Amino acid sequence: MKLAILGAGTVGRSVADLAGEYGHEVVALADSTNAVIDADGIDVDSALQRKIGDEPIGISDPEDAFETEYDVLVEATPTTLDDAEPAFSHVKRALEADRHAVLANKGPVAERYEELQTLATDSAGSVRFEAAVGGAIPVLSTIEDCSPETVTAVRGILNGTANFILTRMAAEGLDYEHVLAEAQDLGVAETDPTFDVDGTDVALKLVILANVLADGGFTLEDAAVEGIQSIPGSALDLAAEDGRTIRLIGEATRDGIRVGPRLVPENGPLAVTGTRNIVQIETRNAGSLHSSGRGAGGPETATAVLSDVGRLPQR
Amino acid sequence: MKLAILGAGTVGRSVADLAGEYGHEVVALADSTNAVIDADGIDVDSALQRKIGDEPIGISDPEDAFETEYDVLVEATPTTLDDAEPAFSHVKRALEADRHAVLANKGPVAERYEELQTLATDSAGSVRFEAAVGGAIPVLSTIEDCSPETVTAVRGILNGTANFILTRMAAEGLDYEHVLAEAQDLGVAETDPTFDVDGTDVALKLVILANVLADGGFTLEDAAVEGIQSIPGSALDLAAEDGRTIRLIGEATRDGIRVGPRLVPENGPLAVTGTRNIVQIETRNAGSLHSSGRGAGGPETATAVLSDVGRLPQR
Repeated sequence: MKLAILGAGTVGRSVADLAGEYGHEVVALADSTNAVIDADGIDVDSALQRKIGDEPIGISDPEDAFETEYDVLVEATPTTLDDAEPAFSHVKRALEADRHAVLANKGPVAERYEELQTLATDSAGSVRFEAAVGGAIPVLSTIEDCSPETVTAVRGILNGTANFILTRMAAEGLDYEHVLAEAQDLGVAETDPTFDVDGTDVALKLVILANVLADGGFTLEDAAVEGIQSIPGSALDLAAEDGRTIRLIGEATRDGIRVGPRLVPENGPLAVTGTRNIVQIETRNAGSLHSSGRGAGGPETATAVLSDVGRLPQR
Repeated sequence: MKLAILGAGTVGRSVADLAGEYGHEVVALADSTNAVIDADGIDVDSALQRKIGDEPIGISDPEDAFETEYDVLVEATPTTLDDAEPAFSHVKRALEADRHAVLANKGPVAERYEELQTLATDSAGSVRFEAAVGGAIPVLSTIEDCSPETVTAVRGILNGTANFILTRMAAEGLDYEHVLAEAQDLGVAETDPTFDVDGTDVALKLVILANVLADGGFTLEDAAVEGIQSIPGSALDLAAEDGRTIRLIGEATRDGIRVGPRLVPENGPLAVTGTRNIVQIETRNAGSLHSSGRGAGGPETATAVLSDVGRLPQR
């Protein structure tokens, strides 16, 4: 398939980089100011070199990406909340032009789910968003395959930054501020880590999951959210004395979304360590399915995008 | 889709039982001697009642199932080795009639993989076999979605009977024969548990995985297999002193298949307990994906069959 990729950050660049390996062609790659476009397939390596070298990625306007003969619009611009713009409009244009849209961007799916589904229903194109939840872990495709109606709850650890911080606090007996600084040095936490540590990132992913289970009805405002910034090191020591530790757990059912720190058994399935994520899918007929893996990262998230591309029907 | 189900054991009955929930119709259900057939959909509850009550499941010949207007043949007869008959011929007939075939039966996929693929290539129908590996755990669909070429190895615990026995031996300090008898009483081990405890069942599943990774080339004869029957209780005590336990682990790569008891960290991901299974998929771009869940059981395996049905293309 021919891919038009909007967003040349970590994820967009990785999708461009790996597309050929999965048999697809990149006809456009755009950041917020420029785009490189070639109907016969762009020279991905040169484009990535320019971007990393801080040169303009191309000589075209990002708008021109929509004029190419792309099959799939890959939306990998930074996630925005509330009106989820400009991502929502990008996806709308693609679907109204009867093209497919594959999102790594959480905004449209968390905040304007029903509108998105209506656009998809009226389009010859489809919308998929595996990459918006759980990085490389196949969460949404698993739910889709076992039929959302048979899923009763989805629970898990869905933010690697928060999990890394809690893992280190427990392992070293250090306090939150100290470990956050360490995480930022390592590139595991961003300069502004707010959404990762206050639970918003997890909440967005769970809102998406609740929307899938209930076929819409939820936005970020519906989530009860508590983060990890106020956890003292002593809380983890106390937990350890009882054979437990603390993890930032999110849970989504058809009734709602809750995110917050929870005590979990130290050696149980929910005590994944470091930046790893885990998702538990509770089903009516097949018990509990657990999937763990890398929840974030360029190549990891790109594999989820390309997995979605592979599951698109012919238009 | 209209399903013709061959095999009315635990799996066949569960597929018939759950088909309606997934929006499908059962037009034929056959055991080795009889069949119940109705082009408008059989009365599943009555058929299951007759089977469980030891009455003939229907008044038709199993052969007649092939004469119905089915879309998907579900092959759920007991797994046989070597020529994998009669399952192979069943699947051949379906594909040659341009129908789909979904297998819970491991035989054709482990022992005659290339012949099966050739039949599928020449057919308007497709062949899928998620239910042959790992019960409810989506192993093959995950590999398919992330692209088999990017998968370097698949490893895991794929037999619940063996895993239950080892879990109990470690937990209670009991010996193998004792725990086997307990497992048989509980219905976790069969009257003839050979394939479960000697590693053959795991080996078959790994042969299937190796065939998927390498696009054919393997049969059961290629697997180096060791079971759990000779493990003394003392071996588990010794392992525990070192913070480890013993699990029956199988591994498949493009180079071959190995099955045998291995020492694993007591609290590591590979130390799943009881009848639970776990699969680790090693990928080139996305690190390691772990999936655990119920590896066997009627409803569990049926969900894998029905997930496959949902992923079939239109003929």
